[in-house]
Amino acid sequence: MTEDKNFPARESIEEIEEGALLQPKFDEKGLIPCIAQDADSGEILMFAYMNNIALQASISTGLAHYYSRSRNKLWKKGEQSGNFQRIVSLLIDCDQDCVLIKVKIDGGASCHLGYRSCFFRGLEDLSENTDFKLDFTEKEKVFDPKKVYKKNN
Amino acid sequence: MTEDKNFPARESIEEIEEGALLQPKFDEKGLIPCIAQDADSGEILMFAYMNNIALQASISTGLAHYYSRSRNKLWKKGEQSGNFQRIVSLLIDCDQDCVLIKVKIDGGASCHLGYRSCFFRGLEDLSENTDFKLDFTEKEKVFDPKKVYKKNN
Repeated sequence: MTEDKNFPARESIEEIEEGALLQPKFDEKGLIPCIAQDADSGEILMFAYMNNIALQASISTGLAHYYSRSRNKLWKKGEQSGNFQRIVSLLIDCDQDCVLIKVKIDGGASCHLGYRSCFFRGLEDLSENTDFKLDFTEKEKVFDPKKVYKKNN
Repeated sequence: MTEDKNFPARESIEEIEEGALLQPKFDEKGLIPCIAQDADSGEILMFAYMNNIALQASISTGLAHYYSRSRNKLWKKGEQSGNFQRIVSLLIDCDQDCVLIKVKIDGGASCHLGYRSCFFRGLEDLSENTDFKLDFTEKEKVFDPKKVYKKNN
């Protein structure tokens, strides 16, 4: 539990569930899941993970920071693409094991593929959909990832 | 990878990221995170996990099913409280490792504490908030958990 030493300690279920102190739970990998929601439209933009440092940095700077599991490093969202996420409010769920940030985004996109949201595909008619065919809810990309990222895209 | 045998196999990054087939990635515990959003208001209601069976059941019945990590079993949301979640659409993110369901809820609440949303507390003024004090965004509970759940509440 050394990872979350800077946040108030998690001591009782009552305090965690009904109390008024941020006592985030980091999992066995030191991570907490985070949902990013557009503060204006309510659209879900992306889902990622924060470690203790990323959560602290997000709060202190007001800019979303995550922990990149693929690159194993702190990840300031927008550092490559310019699509920074400015945090309007940061919420925590009842168990304090998931973070929700409401953000305003620079550049109009949050997905590394160039879409506004990472959730650009889905099933509409669930029980009728037996072949798991996805419909695209976004028809056009906001940016061309080949032009924005220098490598691997 | 036996857990996701019923969904189309994940074969290439291009197909996963840009294709039109649902190819969900279950983690080493056989789980995929799931965000539940109110289909009408856009409010985030809760965050939980699905396993292969829960995702299949959610799609085939149109009612949200999760996997309860605390009870180690399939969990049909609302089975105790009556607060079922009727899925309007089911989206998947770019990496296909997170599910988003847009739902209509019976009973008006999704949190086991009786709140409409599990995200009923948060930080408003981030950089000013150095003591991690949460503000309650919901002032009243929709239901009294003591009356709705028979045990542990």
